[in-house]
Amino acid sequence: MKKTPVRGMKDFLPEEMALRDYVQGTILSVYRSFGYQRISTPIVEDKENLEKSEGGDNLNLMYQILKRGQKLESAKEKGDALWDLGLRYDLTLPLSRFYAANQHLLPSPFKCIQTDRAYRAENPQKGRMREFVQCDIDIIGDESEYGEVELIAVTAKALQAVDFTGFTVWVNDRQVLRAALIQLGFALDTLESVCVTLDKLDKIALEGVTGELSEKGFPESAIASLSALLSKGEPTLEDIANLLSNAPEIARLQRVIGEAKAIGEAEGFTADFKFTLVRGQGYYTGTIFEIEYLGYPGSVAGGGRYDGLIGKFTGTPVSSIGFSIGFERITSILMEKGFALPSRRKHIALVYETQSPTEVFSKVQALTEEGFEVTAMPRPKNVGKLFARLEGEGYHGAFFLTSGEMKVFGA
Amino acid sequence: MKKTPVRGMKDFLPEEMALRDYVQGTILSVYRSFGYQRISTPIVEDKENLEKSEGGDNLNLMYQILKRGQKLESAKEKGDALWDLGLRYDLTLPLSRFYAANQHLLPSPFKCIQTDRAYRAENPQKGRMREFVQCDIDIIGDESEYGEVELIAVTAKALQAVDFTGFTVWVNDRQVLRAALIQLGFALDTLESVCVTLDKLDKIALEGVTGELSEKGFPESAIASLSALLSKGEPTLEDIANLLSNAPEIARLQRVIGEAKAIGEAEGFTADFKFTLVRGQGYYTGTIFEIEYLGYPGSVAGGGRYDGLIGKFTGTPVSSIGFSIGFERITSILMEKGFALPSRRKHIALVYETQSPTEVFSKVQALTEEGFEVTAMPRPKNVGKLFARLEGEGYHGAFFLTSGEMKVFGA
Repeated sequence: MKKTPVRGMKDFLPEEMALRDYVQGTILSVYRSFGYQRISTPIVEDKENLEKSEGGDNLNLMYQILKRGQKLESAKEKGDALWDLGLRYDLTLPLSRFYAANQHLLPSPFKCIQTDRAYRAENPQKGRMREFVQCDIDIIGDESEYGEVELIAVTAKALQAVDFTGFTVWVNDRQVLRAALIQLGFALDTLESVCVTLDKLDKIALEGVTGELSEKGFPESAIASLSALLSKGEPTLEDIANLLSNAPEIARLQRVIGEAKAIGEAEGFTADFKFTLVRGQGYYTGTIFEIEYLGYPGSVAGGGRYDGLIGKFTGTPVSSIGFSIGFERITSILMEKGFALPSRRKHIALVYETQSPTEVFSKVQALTEEGFEVTAMPRPKNVGKLFARLEGEGYHGAFFLTSGEMKVFGA
Repeated sequence: MKKTPVRGMKDFLPEEMALRDYVQGTILSVYRSFGYQRISTPIVEDKENLEKSEGGDNLNLMYQILKRGQKLESAKEKGDALWDLGLRYDLTLPLSRFYAANQHLLPSPFKCIQTDRAYRAENPQKGRMREFVQCDIDIIGDESEYGEVELIAVTAKALQAVDFTGFTVWVNDRQVLRAALIQLGFALDTLESVCVTLDKLDKIALEGVTGELSEKGFPESAIASLSALLSKGEPTLEDIANLLSNAPEIARLQRVIGEAKAIGEAEGFTADFKFTLVRGQGYYTGTIFEIEYLGYPGSVAGGGRYDGLIGKFTGTPVSSIGFSIGFERITSILMEKGFALPSRRKHIALVYETQSPTEVFSKVQALTEEGFEVTAMPRPKNVGKLFARLEGEGYHGAFFLTSGEMKVFGA
């Protein structure tokens, strides 16, 4: 039998799990203080829901669950799909389904927390796992700019609470991005394809982007205009406002970014416009954002408005916006930085000899009531070896039940 | 698109999730105070590991994940299995794999916590879901009776901490059970099948059990002996000790039950021997236990010794014992009982009008710092309707940003 976890997934040792529990608990407590309420949905979703969710490339990375019993036999005979369930690739689709089903039981606006697992069968790489936890907050039923601003501010507070500082919130708007690309000469029905290429700018640089756009056969004049726009680095919001002759899409984004900058200044983070911020999922309809942390590549959080997703279930679109912290990214950065957990209870060993289990447990209990974490164990022959081992394992001391003595390590 | 969760799985609304988080947090904190450390493993496990795990009927209820890409095509052509991964059916197999892989990094004895999801495609019924959470503690590397006693006492403390009292811990030993069945005249290689039938005693009564054993073709003399033993209800431990002429298997069980009774008396629960306690999984090798809560059918917790499972990975058996709280059972019982959460922060609405998002958020923040949970929302035209709705949704009050007034509900 195989000792290792399945490909791309990970076991968490006690030390790492203590960090994860601390980080998750801290983030949850920030979210809760701003009136967000936690919900939970199954990690398994219906095939059809997943396939219709505009999840972009994530749909190709889905774990598919085999049909069972007679259904499977019949599917094999008829050559139908062999699967009818899948593991979710994010928490936004399940939330939209949840809201559609439970709307009548939920407050409005509904401010909700999800911190839970999702699955993508990607090529595993550092900080990118096939099973991963996301910490999401979403506001459903508030179309005002306050939604954007609160999500940015609360997510920033959560990151700061777990010792992240000096990050930048990048903001864009899908409608502005699309309007600008049309203005540059790309056709409406090709915008998703242009965006897929543009999204690679960080990795393949401007020449790579223009090369790929040429290969895809887009008009050279449009590619040249885009190249000119990006040639001096990221265009400013003013550049784009000029390009779009202050089209109505611009005004809202200007207000959002103005507010985000103001809050960032007050709260100790940077916020700014980034024209080349695209975000992968097709379901975004307005503002999109990402958080970049110092020199770390990729983002530590991302999200945006997805006003159409709930309507796919109910027929009535509902203003929705979410921000998701990439839990695996931030815990792995904290591990790298050697983040020390706030001090906990002292962990001691209780060493027993011939005492009965009831006697041993009664003393264990008395010591836990004194505030220790206590692990009972029988006395080995070689006590010196035991001390060395316990000290190595992070114990603070050992209490000997027979003699009533406490040996404190490192003291 | 389908609004309901997939068959047998469940969405959790904020109120129920708050209860679940409270129960889980409370149980975790009891476990931690006794020196147990949390670990985590993926919910996806290797097919071969799952199939060789002696999981009894659970193996028939497994969610199977389709192979991907070339592997799937090749499996289809060759008529090989279409799946290579599955969702775990419990937390004991993943823990055994984890321990085998990480033994050199873990203390001994290793006292560990897992609270996490598992999957079984059972026919859904009340309190029995296809996706469910278990709260397990396990001790690996302590073969003494202290292991049994501590697991029973700590599990009892965890249940009491979430308001369960008046429960009974039933204890048996697989070796005693098997020795007794042999003594009654059943053949060694048929014991598992006898146990499967005996396990149904609660559901089909003694006549049902003897009938099924007859149908299965077991010797009538053995069936008659079993029937005589059970005719006056559960046999006592003395009955079984006499039956087995005080065989060595008995002495240890007697000590364990004696200790469990003593701790139960001190800690306010009942513990006793139950000969017909079987437990489904094939991997148990010694003591087994279950907790029954008042009139509720089935068990709220169960576990036992499984000294062989880790050895399947490493070649060297390691003494292992675990106790698992059925989280879905206990939360659904608490919901039924109308369990009230300890009081939390007061939740208020902050109602804004024309203020900018930054102004609104600055007040939200000030109010959270005063200890409120705050949900900001725009002022609707009909404030009376808003009050009625907010009060219905459990808000404690509404603060009006323009006037600076606080409306307290129900006051």
